[in-house]
Amino acid sequence: MTDDEVTDDTSARSGLSRRGLLGLAGLGAGVLGAGIGVGADRAVQASATGSSGAQATYPFYGKHQSGIVTAAQDRLHFAAFDVSEGTTRDDLVGLLKDWSYAAARMTRGEEVSKSGATGGSLYAPPDDTGEALGLPAAGLTITIGFGPSLFDDRFGLASKRPPRLIDLPSFAGDNLDDAMSGGDLCIQACSDDPQIAVHAIRNLSRIAFGRAGLRWSQLGFGRTSSTTRGQATPRNLFGFKDGTANLKAEDSALVAKDVWASASHGADWMDGGSYLVSRKIRMQIETWDHQSLKEQQTVVGRDKGAGAPLSGGTEFSAIDFHAKRDGAPAVPTTSHVSLAHPDHNGGAQLLRRGYNFVDGNDSLGRLNAGLFFICYQNDPENQFVRIQTALAANDAMNEYVQHVSSGIFAVPPGASRGGYVGETLFA
Amino acid sequence: MTDDEVTDDTSARSGLSRRGLLGLAGLGAGVLGAGIGVGADRAVQASATGSSGAQATYPFYGKHQSGIVTAAQDRLHFAAFDVSEGTTRDDLVGLLKDWSYAAARMTRGEEVSKSGATGGSLYAPPDDTGEALGLPAAGLTITIGFGPSLFDDRFGLASKRPPRLIDLPSFAGDNLDDAMSGGDLCIQACSDDPQIAVHAIRNLSRIAFGRAGLRWSQLGFGRTSSTTRGQATPRNLFGFKDGTANLKAEDSALVAKDVWASASHGADWMDGGSYLVSRKIRMQIETWDHQSLKEQQTVVGRDKGAGAPLSGGTEFSAIDFHAKRDGAPAVPTTSHVSLAHPDHNGGAQLLRRGYNFVDGNDSLGRLNAGLFFICYQNDPENQFVRIQTALAANDAMNEYVQHVSSGIFAVPPGASRGGYVGETLFA
Ligand code: HEM
Ligand code: HEM
Repeated sequence: MTDDEVTDDTSARSGLSRRGLLGLAGLGAGVLGAGIGVGADRAVQASATGSSGAQATYPFYGKHQSGIVTAAQDRLHFAAFDVSEGTTRDDLVGLLKDWSYAAARMTRGEEVSKSGATGGSLYAPPDDTGEALGLPAAGLTITIGFGPSLFDDRFGLASKRPPRLIDLPSFAGDNLDDAMSGGDLCIQACSDDPQIAVHAIRNLSRIAFGRAGLRWSQLGFGRTSSTTRGQATPRNLFGFKDGTANLKAEDSALVAKDVWASASHGADWMDGGSYLVSRKIRMQIETWDHQSLKEQQTVVGRDKGAGAPLSGGTEFSAIDFHAKRDGAPAVPTTSHVSLAHPDHNGGAQLLRRGYNFVDGNDSLGRLNAGLFFICYQNDPENQFVRIQTALAANDAMNEYVQHVSSGIFAVPPGASRGGYVGETLFA
Repeated sequence: MTDDEVTDDTSARSGLSRRGLLGLAGLGAGVLGAGIGVGADRAVQASATGSSGAQATYPFYGKHQSGIVTAAQDRLHFAAFDVSEGTTRDDLVGLLKDWSYAAARMTRGEEVSKSGATGGSLYAPPDDTGEALGLPAAGLTITIGFGPSLFDDRFGLASKRPPRLIDLPSFAGDNLDDAMSGGDLCIQACSDDPQIAVHAIRNLSRIAFGRAGLRWSQLGFGRTSSTTRGQATPRNLFGFKDGTANLKAEDSALVAKDVWASASHGADWMDGGSYLVSRKIRMQIETWDHQSLKEQQTVVGRDKGAGAPLSGGTEFSAIDFHAKRDGAPAVPTTSHVSLAHPDHNGGAQLLRRGYNFVDGNDSLGRLNAGLFFICYQNDPENQFVRIQTALAANDAMNEYVQHVSSGIFAVPPGASRGGYVGETLFA
């Protein structure tokens, strides 16, 4: 983390709200209050017996939320929520406080509350579902965002909607499933151990019970982008290196210019935040696999082995759009990297942070596979939308991909020590 | 591996069959034969840059297939295939040869063929899809099985059907989806890196093109059973330790008695093989999460924290079914471990090797999650069927689980050096 003020909430809050505890207990909550809660002083298990060797922990509190410039972890569980009917503004604030409290604990490798899965009353549902007991945090980050619909008239937030939290336009070729798109709230849980990411989403859903319900969710099994220079570039399901020309955490001037929102962008409360765009992109991998290596490389604009631009050099060589081969541009103008490159988009850049997915197969025996694309930026209109408009119109890759889900979320700044994500919005 | 004769196929076979190469190229295969294939002498990339630290490799050739008593890896991609119409017995043998050749390479951290993703002709589809380039084998095992339907009249195998490859009966409470059950062939790919397991299934599906097609498939993100004493016991999505009383690889006398098929079981060709039963079990985790800790522990028969039997002791203490608490059995007779225990099933034991799954969520916002149960044994009738009959009738856990897919497969012995899985069947 470059410029986070890392803090820690030990004893800063008394724990989950009564409403949050009721959520954990479900509807038959009358019996609660005595046994359940944060009374037990149980030592947290965070031993090294986990399946992942990764012992990293990232701060939950700080200037920015973690999970944005954090070195991309290996696995993802992403979830979008809708606020439940009858939920008031105060309830919503309560939910964000409970989420923040539980998230801060989980990112330290702790259970959602002090009594956790086994330290509460025998006669009440445990606070924590338990499947992460004994596992380390494995680099868990929990990043919370607010969709455009949160700023309607339900919570008195209409005047606070950031001008840069636009409604995404529809793009040529979109085939979006509405039930798998949008959402009032989102949570991105990334970890090197999928059991940890799944545990986080499951427990935060539970805490939301009665206040917000899961709208859609997505598991990602392998990161497709490196976000720091220390990481090897991973590969996507087209078999190509992905993340080579990504904005990297170390590019601090670019990160400041292109990723972090500032008060001057029309919404003070977003200062230090960012905007997340998600696109679930189904890849026709069987069709792709039948193309020649030349066609595949022509589509991407880079070679498959090393990831070097077709204009020559090695993986990290600058792309030379003037280089010719057989009289034509060596990097075709309809190649993905040409159309997505900042030089052809008024300098626009993205911090990409996507994941490969496989959701079983269809009835024709084709794997339902692709890229769950996530990117961060401070100006979606002039970054994601600009680039995607160019891609949707001319990208040679369009023959092999289809966008099936879409989301945009304002990701507020990090919570202050003992505070909660969204505190600047509701203050 | 306890008693494998570890061998290695370097130069033992000439590579993928022409038919296999045609599969890789799809229908427009006329152009092939020259550029594609196994000619190029490209060094395989298997560096340590992968996302998983696991550098383990397991032998593909040997007395038994790997992936059975092998220390359970963290991730799973399981696939069931149906043989395509018009496929002959010889084609089927050719497919098994191609699968074995490619599987042996992949389990060594190599690409499916020597020319792989980038070493072939520019003008042909690459042999390998490439997303595992640069990653180590990460403990990959590929285990191939034959379903009962393979022994119908299509391939002249009816007389070779092992008597122990029974059709599973239907059990009380079953809610099976036929499209997600059964299959002529199965492949279990396990690895510590999901990208490696997905790459294996995808490439083996590709090689099968025109000869067998994917019927159903399942990703599992976290192992639910330990199969060796060296492994920490993982947890399932009910938050309980799973695998405590599992048959372990080190119990060699029990493994010989209960896991490996022998010639005396009515099918010579299965000597050294085993039988795999798969059950996709959806877990109603939201309902479970609303139960008290006491109810959860009563259902399982063990405590949630340490995994000790309710009769007392620690995780690996023997269960005392005579112990009483408040006049009743401390381990209730309808608890899962009581009903599943060998003492109550004529000594029957299983080698369990299941995985947690989450397949998104349903329209009510409930995670579609559960256990993809896999077990190995040499006598399904008297092992899985016996135990599952007892569980289906009385298991207190039934209120929280539902079986939605089912499969049974004869898993032949390991291939001999340079041979193929199934050689004893077709010999
Ligand atoms: C399934 C869909 C996609 C695939 C398979 C894919 C794949 C790739 C690959 C292989 C590269 C080259 C390596 C690298 O620099 O990271 C790349 C670069 C890039 N992609 Fe994508 N991409 C997809 C969708 C998108 C979308 C939706 C966007 C944004 C609208 C996008 C924006 C970019 C950008 C900005 C670059 C860097 C271009 C440069 O500066 O050289 N990609 N992508
Ligand atoms: C979602 C479904 C299931 C869950 C959550 C589950 C969970 C558990 C748990 C927590 C244990 C105790 C720890 C251990 O010894 O591993 C256990 C034991 C066991 N389970 Fe399951 N199980 C499920 C399905 C099945 C099925 C379908 C079978 C076989 C038909 C089975 C057979 C066994 C056996 C044989 C034991 C060991 C009993 C003993 O000897 O103590 N389980 N299971």
